[in-house]
Amino acid sequence: MTNAPADRSRSAGARPAPGQRRLRMTVAYDGAAFHGMAANDGVRTVVGSLVEALEPMLGPVELSVAGRTDAGVHAAGQVVSFDAPVEGPEPEALQRAVNARCAPELVVRDVAEAAPDFDARFSARARVYRYTVLNGPVPDPFLARTALWVPQPLDLNALRLSCDAVIGLHDFSSFCRRPKRPLGEVSLERRVLDARWSVVGEGLLRFEISATAFCHQMVRSIVGTSLEMGAGRRRPGEMAGIVRARDRHAAGQVAPPHGLCLWQVVY
Amino acid sequence: MTNAPADRSRSAGARPAPGQRRLRMTVAYDGAAFHGMAANDGVRTVVGSLVEALEPMLGPVELSVAGRTDAGVHAAGQVVSFDAPVEGPEPEALQRAVNARCAPELVVRDVAEAAPDFDARFSARARVYRYTVLNGPVPDPFLARTALWVPQPLDLNALRLSCDAVIGLHDFSSFCRRPKRPLGEVSLERRVLDARWSVVGEGLLRFEISATAFCHQMVRSIVGTSLEMGAGRRRPGEMAGIVRARDRHAAGQVAPPHGLCLWQVVY
Repeated sequence: MTNAPADRSRSAGARPAPGQRRLRMTVAYDGAAFHGMAANDGVRTVVGSLVEALEPMLGPVELSVAGRTDAGVHAAGQVVSFDAPVEGPEPEALQRAVNARCAPELVVRDVAEAAPDFDARFSARARVYRYTVLNGPVPDPFLARTALWVPQPLDLNALRLSCDAVIGLHDFSSFCRRPKRPLGEVSLERRVLDARWSVVGEGLLRFEISATAFCHQMVRSIVGTSLEMGAGRRRPGEMAGIVRARDRHAAGQVAPPHGLCLWQVVY
Repeated sequence: MTNAPADRSRSAGARPAPGQRRLRMTVAYDGAAFHGMAANDGVRTVVGSLVEALEPMLGPVELSVAGRTDAGVHAAGQVVSFDAPVEGPEPEALQRAVNARCAPELVVRDVAEAAPDFDARFSARARVYRYTVLNGPVPDPFLARTALWVPQPLDLNALRLSCDAVIGLHDFSSFCRRPKRPLGEVSLERRVLDARWSVVGEGLLRFEISATAFCHQMVRSIVGTSLEMGAGRRRPGEMAGIVRARDRHAAGQVAPPHGLCLWQVVY
């Protein structure tokens, strides 16, 4: 996912046009049901589905999205903002209409009027992602869509130690896919507020990470690297050096998208 | 699901042939991925998939299945028994082979050698089923495959009162689809050991029922009727009369299969 302000053309701070109000919508979706986030003609995407459901009621809408999730990544608490006519449908009617059209793969959990300067992306203070791992000899049919199955035993202590080094302000070049633009323009410096592994059920491990913003593939790349340490293929103490290397090749595999979920956006 | 002894031709108590041993396997599956339980040429079924995975290693196998789940019904703890050559693969190797072929939609949780007179179906003392309902205004993408979404508010007290009347030994004709054979042959008398609704999460309700055996569509029919009482469309006190009526038309709608899971078989 990419949350760097330089990555989108929409300017921060624009207020609604006269006769319009700003709305804030919390949505959840099963990433497996969509071909990624951004609108894309001919395929089902998260933004495309929302826009198609909203425009018959509102006319043209432009969505600001808090966290750009990669294809296959889920969301429980994604936030989007957009403008709608003051004289148009009430927020609850919009929620019902979108859910009637998009549920159950994509649902609007909540819609409300927001302050005129609220912007789902630029007003966000932090994003919280969760990555779920089923660690045991046997897969689980009911977790197959939302958790990565890792049969080899993982050392929880090694997992925990491995992620301390990503907390704080760092250049995350080692964990991020470089944007296609010229290198000089884009900073991959991000502030990670917290990152930790915990046990949440029998054989069920969860990595939770919060940061002011994330660059592309950052969480999945940190998880993939951390899992190599949990599996004993690298020492947890190597994580600090990997961060410092600022080299994509220093990090481990990118973990698959289906274990990842945008859990919450903090404003 | 149908567990009545009269419904299957396999006789109880048959012991393994010389050179064979009896194995007991616990399996879990996502009912949505299969066209029902019974082997059926050309479509993916639970028994068909297990047999196809086992026969290359064991030669012809005949499975005894504890609970015949309807199409779309899940299982967390389904039990099957079958015979395998004593000189053949170890149980763990069978588990790995089936999982390599069938996971994640169908997984073997456990395989072990059983007593020669063990029969997954005829040795079972009770089956436990769970039905999950998401009761709230908004559906949940991550529960869509395993819980029935009911938007209108349900009265937990009415749900609880409604199911007391099914506990005990009754003729469940009101809740069971009649087998196609002549009526006289088949008893729909079953003993329900326990049946109760509980709250298991935010907006998440669970009906758990255990019985020595169930007849076809019995759990889903009881759930559908109970939900009508929870929604206030019938009074909970009517349940006793519906049981007594022994008339399929007295009961409510059959609840959809995706909320139901064969949770456990007790031996």
